[in-house]
Amino acid sequence: MKTLPEAVTLDLSGSRFTVTYRLTGTHEEAQRMAQDICIEQTVEFPEDLLPSGFVARVTGRVESLMPLEAPDRFEAVISFADETTGYELPQLLNVIFGNISIKPGIRVEGLALSPRLLQHFRGPQFGQDGLRRRLNAFDRPLLSTALKPMGLSALELSELAYQFALGGIDIIKDDHGLADQPFAPWRERVLRCADAVARANAQTGGHSLYMPNLSAPAEGLLQRAHEAAKAGAGGLLVAPGLTGFDAVRALASAAGPGLPVMSHPAWLGSFVTHPDQGISHGALFGHIMRLAGADATVFPNYGGRFSFRREECLQIAQAATLPMGDVAPMFPAPGGGMTAERVADMLDTYGQDVIFLIGGGLFRDGGDVRRNSESMREALDTYRK
Amino acid sequence: MKTLPEAVTLDLSGSRFTVTYRLTGTHEEAQRMAQDICIEQTVEFPEDLLPSGFVARVTGRVESLMPLEAPDRFEAVISFADETTGYELPQLLNVIFGNISIKPGIRVEGLALSPRLLQHFRGPQFGQDGLRRRLNAFDRPLLSTALKPMGLSALELSELAYQFALGGIDIIKDDHGLADQPFAPWRERVLRCADAVARANAQTGGHSLYMPNLSAPAEGLLQRAHEAAKAGAGGLLVAPGLTGFDAVRALASAAGPGLPVMSHPAWLGSFVTHPDQGISHGALFGHIMRLAGADATVFPNYGGRFSFRREECLQIAQAATLPMGDVAPMFPAPGGGMTAERVADMLDTYGQDVIFLIGGGLFRDGGDVRRNSESMREALDTYRK
Repeated sequence: MKTLPEAVTLDLSGSRFTVTYRLTGTHEEAQRMAQDICIEQTVEFPEDLLPSGFVARVTGRVESLMPLEAPDRFEAVISFADETTGYELPQLLNVIFGNISIKPGIRVEGLALSPRLLQHFRGPQFGQDGLRRRLNAFDRPLLSTALKPMGLSALELSELAYQFALGGIDIIKDDHGLADQPFAPWRERVLRCADAVARANAQTGGHSLYMPNLSAPAEGLLQRAHEAAKAGAGGLLVAPGLTGFDAVRALASAAGPGLPVMSHPAWLGSFVTHPDQGISHGALFGHIMRLAGADATVFPNYGGRFSFRREECLQIAQAATLPMGDVAPMFPAPGGGMTAERVADMLDTYGQDVIFLIGGGLFRDGGDVRRNSESMREALDTYRK
Repeated sequence: MKTLPEAVTLDLSGSRFTVTYRLTGTHEEAQRMAQDICIEQTVEFPEDLLPSGFVARVTGRVESLMPLEAPDRFEAVISFADETTGYELPQLLNVIFGNISIKPGIRVEGLALSPRLLQHFRGPQFGQDGLRRRLNAFDRPLLSTALKPMGLSALELSELAYQFALGGIDIIKDDHGLADQPFAPWRERVLRCADAVARANAQTGGHSLYMPNLSAPAEGLLQRAHEAAKAGAGGLLVAPGLTGFDAVRALASAAGPGLPVMSHPAWLGSFVTHPDQGISHGALFGHIMRLAGADATVFPNYGGRFSFRREECLQIAQAATLPMGDVAPMFPAPGGGMTAERVADMLDTYGQDVIFLIGGGLFRDGGDVRRNSESMREALDTYRK
């Protein structure tokens, strides 16, 4: 008795999205890999056993396969039916790179969603324009810093937040390692830091925002986000590697607290460390973060203590702002290695629509973070539009 | 004005957990990398600016650094204060491999949680014993298969589920690519498949379980899980790469529906594809999955269409069952490349406490999945304890 139907009629829209993969192997191997991706990411079934109609409609389709300049490297553009995603982010990511993440020599270079599929993704709630409005900062690059080191009390962290806000830092975020540790419990920290930044704003007339790090049990993530909003937080920092990308979408959705979201790259480095594996910098920290709904994407700047190269950072910045249906552009937020001396070079790379994330550097020169923050603002302001 | 305190007194327990890292570089470089991990994963702050007391208490500590047999490879054991984790899984993962995932030449080889920290992790709700009780199968390896291909209707998938259950497959799970697609909507699929397996059980006196794939918006994950339980599902399949690891913990917690959880490796391959980067097979698919609360961990078997080697699969199987405080052992669930001919070899590798996951193979030989399932059961039963 044969159990599978002989043929299947599916009512599909015909709308498809494409993923560009970099493949490593000979031309013949690359052809096989591309075919394999079409099957593995959809029906995951021996091709010779598929009922009639599946290959044409449900499986992926190789749209092109071109040699790249490097030897034994190919670029395959593969299209998938929109319906395979169920119009949900986790399954979209699963179609893009679920099972084949486990096969060597495949790297996601980019994606292009169909207009029909894009309609299901709201993307950033605020985007560049909305975040600038909240910060009342329209004609200059933005500055952000992190509250640290882990181990300070909530009171000590809030004193830092106060000084940073007095010094004119736009976005004062928790370090991504601040969770709910006994030395600075989450709720107390958020209340104190939000209050400190509000006091500084009242004093200076500024519009600094405090963004706590939303590290929380999965079932309590939205609740903590709403608590943060109630406490006066001006945004949220989230590491999608730890929470799942869909948590970003949920926070940016109607179920969330209506706060801007900054994404952090923690845990995700393994996707980009090998040039022939994983996901490209632009696709992961640019395209996918933005699709999920980040208003700003934090990533390690070139020339700092991490190993991203300038062109990889530029890829992220470009994916953060390229036209993408109705999805708003987000801010690239390069972190690390930023000094007053590098401002001109950085602006040359990123332009004005950028958030510079400066951490430990603001504690140098005697540790007066207010004065150091002011100096950095002044260094940037000389390059005002 | 200096903003940081001169010294900090922290009331820490003194209890620490350790992570073993494989480092790539010369001995001097490895020493620097190990020190860097201690800082980067905790205070993330210039060491020379830290207030007194931090280095000894809050930052990581290099417990040992030993050369490995391969040239320019070292093994560093680094301990961290339990408190740095806030006793929550996302932050524990963040301490283990957050920022340093972005630095090249670092691989997490293993972890050893302190008894004090382990108390905060319940692990699998059922474990091997509990799952065997649910399946009424005590003295033999278990069999699992996946409902597919994507594109079949909910009715067609449920007919397959029925035949698999009649054929004696213990765990009939959704393929991990079945989400909430229009051709087989989630709710209808779960209702139909759970019902089909229940009918087959009633007919045979068997105890097969149906486990739907829980791919859902983050804010609706627990709700879908409870719906599945209500519909008669016997467990849940979850891909922590897509949902976040903490979703597994939430599902296995008191907030979840009280169903066994199988984890799927989709999206996570990039962590293990490079021997000098990422996380070891055993730590990721074994230790961390189990800590999160998976009752069974699906991974690609050696000799199938993926590239895991036998020793890597064994590492996972070992981490699934090694003593770990009160945390129950989970089942390794190798998938792919399983045939009646390989049974002896597979049992030699994994022993009896294993779930063999067989997919497309059951559709061969004319496509009578019931008969093919029975044959596989018989092949295994000849090796009964």
